[in-house]
Amino acid sequence: MFNNLDLDVIFHPKSIAVVGVPSKVGGNGWLGMYGSLLKFDYPGRLYPINQKVSELGGVKVYPNLSSLPETVDLVILSIPAQYVPDTLRECARTGNKNVHIFTSGFKETGEAEGLRLQEEIEIIARENQLRIIGPNCMGLYVPKSKIVSWPAAPTESGRIAFLSQSGGHAQDFTNYGARLGLRYSKVVSYGNALTLDACDFLEYLAEDPDTDIIAMYLEGISDGRRLLKIVKKINQFKPVVILKAGLTESGTRAVATHTGSMAGETHLWDAFFKQSGAIQAHSLQDMAHTVLALQNINKVQGSRVALLGVGGGVGVEAADACSRAGLKMPDLIPTTQKKLREFIAPAGNMIKNPIDAMPILLSFKLMSKTLDIVSSEPYFDMIIISLHLDWIYDMDQGVHIQKLASYLATSAGKHLNGKPLAVCWRASRLEPKIEEQGLILEKELLQAGVPVYRDLPETANALARISNYHQQKKHLSN
Amino acid sequence: MFNNLDLDVIFHPKSIAVVGVPSKVGGNGWLGMYGSLLKFDYPGRLYPINQKVSELGGVKVYPNLSSLPETVDLVILSIPAQYVPDTLRECARTGNKNVHIFTSGFKETGEAEGLRLQEEIEIIARENQLRIIGPNCMGLYVPKSKIVSWPAAPTESGRIAFLSQSGGHAQDFTNYGARLGLRYSKVVSYGNALTLDACDFLEYLAEDPDTDIIAMYLEGISDGRRLLKIVKKINQFKPVVILKAGLTESGTRAVATHTGSMAGETHLWDAFFKQSGAIQAHSLQDMAHTVLALQNINKVQGSRVALLGVGGGVGVEAADACSRAGLKMPDLIPTTQKKLREFIAPAGNMIKNPIDAMPILLSFKLMSKTLDIVSSEPYFDMIIISLHLDWIYDMDQGVHIQKLASYLATSAGKHLNGKPLAVCWRASRLEPKIEEQGLILEKELLQAGVPVYRDLPETANALARISNYHQQKKHLSN
Repeated sequence: MFNNLDLDVIFHPKSIAVVGVPSKVGGNGWLGMYGSLLKFDYPGRLYPINQKVSELGGVKVYPNLSSLPETVDLVILSIPAQYVPDTLRECARTGNKNVHIFTSGFKETGEAEGLRLQEEIEIIARENQLRIIGPNCMGLYVPKSKIVSWPAAPTESGRIAFLSQSGGHAQDFTNYGARLGLRYSKVVSYGNALTLDACDFLEYLAEDPDTDIIAMYLEGISDGRRLLKIVKKINQFKPVVILKAGLTESGTRAVATHTGSMAGETHLWDAFFKQSGAIQAHSLQDMAHTVLALQNINKVQGSRVALLGVGGGVGVEAADACSRAGLKMPDLIPTTQKKLREFIAPAGNMIKNPIDAMPILLSFKLMSKTLDIVSSEPYFDMIIISLHLDWIYDMDQGVHIQKLASYLATSAGKHLNGKPLAVCWRASRLEPKIEEQGLILEKELLQAGVPVYRDLPETANALARISNYHQQKKHLSN
Repeated sequence: MFNNLDLDVIFHPKSIAVVGVPSKVGGNGWLGMYGSLLKFDYPGRLYPINQKVSELGGVKVYPNLSSLPETVDLVILSIPAQYVPDTLRECARTGNKNVHIFTSGFKETGEAEGLRLQEEIEIIARENQLRIIGPNCMGLYVPKSKIVSWPAAPTESGRIAFLSQSGGHAQDFTNYGARLGLRYSKVVSYGNALTLDACDFLEYLAEDPDTDIIAMYLEGISDGRRLLKIVKKINQFKPVVILKAGLTESGTRAVATHTGSMAGETHLWDAFFKQSGAIQAHSLQDMAHTVLALQNINKVQGSRVALLGVGGGVGVEAADACSRAGLKMPDLIPTTQKKLREFIAPAGNMIKNPIDAMPILLSFKLMSKTLDIVSSEPYFDMIIISLHLDWIYDMDQGVHIQKLASYLATSAGKHLNGKPLAVCWRASRLEPKIEEQGLILEKELLQAGVPVYRDLPETANALARISNYHQQKKHLSN
């Protein structure tokens, strides 16, 4: 029904009309979605529409779509639900085929009037082949096109796409991911999915040269077979990470009242994940952590982890976390132990897996030697370094933490034999200076492309997912 | 073998000898465990012991225990492992029965010498009825007695006890909990549990008038039946929360090399939790969140939650989180909906469960009316309010967030009909000012005794655990 060229116009609109701009500038200069586009420096032709005023903040306001000097690439409707049907008819009449309906009050209400309205606009949209994003959604964020329909988002582009049935989640995932250095090609909040559904966007993203990784927040889907087919195809060359909501009894009901979707049964979704090779995430944060690993690690041969870190309790926690995530932590074999014992004193240092030895964290020479030895062992596929910042901070008030950050960002990579490294840091004490040091370390590592996390289960889960993805990918075929 | 009076002396020592103080003051004034006691203003008689020096930082140093003017209430050994047996013999000779052995290098090494040494000291300890904390542990933190053996901990006392086989976890749990306002009666890191084991400390804490809630980090236990019996007994009047490590294959091996314990099989521990009524935690943070709920909510009748919060995606997440945690989110019945619709406009506001209505968050009059109605419904047992600070912040740069904090801390409680309230806040944007507002809100609520969390699964898990605890408690008996 839709082709990628149509969506290409929607994602890179040269002209936009916003129907239902405010009659006047609100507090803090608030101007709704129209204001978000202005603030984001949208460079195309932008037409505010409102019947009641002729001017807004010094800019001409048009009374309706018919009065515009052109048909536009994208119409945004931000008007009460009862006016949507007539305005859609006007869209059809004026040849404006691409419409983002922000307005809510349709199927998701579960009430008679909302259901009726959604049926009415669906008929109008299908008869006129309108390409509808929504209703009941936040629409688009495409930094390359300088379009965004919410108050704040990074201006730089990246190579991650996010499809979301929730407008709040579209903002939250984008913002939380941005903290981890994630940047986006396209973010789409598509709500009730009147005509354009997840699969239509996926068909586009599959071929989108700007997108390497696809993340999705999914409540329900109209055509499960089509989704399976397309996700399975994409997973062969771009990873797809999906947070599927509504997999519990209460969740299913909540989904129905949110986007009017059918959440579907758990066992069907289990089968979907198995067959499609899609990576299942369990929360927005979890999805961002997984995408971070996918973005920075493009090769991993298996699931066997070597862990370097200090503290017996942390070692036990790491072992449990790795096991639960599906990773293995093989014991060091005697020859490896012997090589390490040549430069690590026995007292207070455990040369097992985890390798629990403070001297390694204090001397970069020892750290490099250790990484050389461990990463060259064929029975390890990846390495985690766990840093307890409270303890390292106490030595010299953070000087060594920053040295460690520089070492891990610039030198550690030369001692990994091409195997992936992830870093996990923690600080339990409520001391702003330690937290501050941690954030600097985090930033430096993220900029250097080293995935960094704040707890061991997070780290283990992210690594397990990409290890699994790379193993499964080989077996996917149409 | 031990009685509570003996332990009472250990927890409230009037005199302490530290064997193995440094020969000189280290960088940053470092003086090891002796220094931690000085810094914590330990008011008792404190004797540093080191054969090689006669003075340290202006204080007389004794050469050995025999030269002290008295037998002390607690001896701390911070000397190399090979000297521990002889020093223990000296303890026995001089009548010093209470010994914390900080030193490691015993059974946990898994190596011949360590195993031999542990056997040797166990014989000495048992023959002389020494009460040993450790070896391979951090020992005690008792704010009331002003004793602590690590660098930093809150000076105020509280009513939570923590028993930990890991010294790192003893510090981490104490510090992480302190961020949530938790304060402690006694924290014990007891490592390899040579003579004093978890059960001995539990017998004491059961009768300790200073302790209301007991948290434990457990790797292994020598007498499972005794543990079951005592935990089951305590749970009838004080909740016991346990983080059991080593419940995976790798974790079991890690436990053996950490404290030389046998982790035990998963199905045995499942049965233990079921029969003892103990609350099972899954991480240190999770344990702290559970203790926070236990501390502030002492009555809850069932597991049915009403949720107030804005955003459809968040509503779905809440429903999934509650279901997964074992809580129920019943639909509002029509009479409740009708009462709420009298003052909440239909457009944009969903009067279901979750109640997704921004006006409630903006007007405290509406919030109070809503809480009055919802909490009076017999089909709800508790209430969660979910706050998305990014959105509330954008309205007025945080002014309303602080008003909300005051309302929730001081007024909301009058509209709850005695039912528990928990608050969950989130901020996705990396904007320090929003985070700052969140921390202020958090602090105000915690001071007012309202449990507050940062994500919905955390909130749901903590509430589910206490709901479950209060239901099960009725069925526990000896």
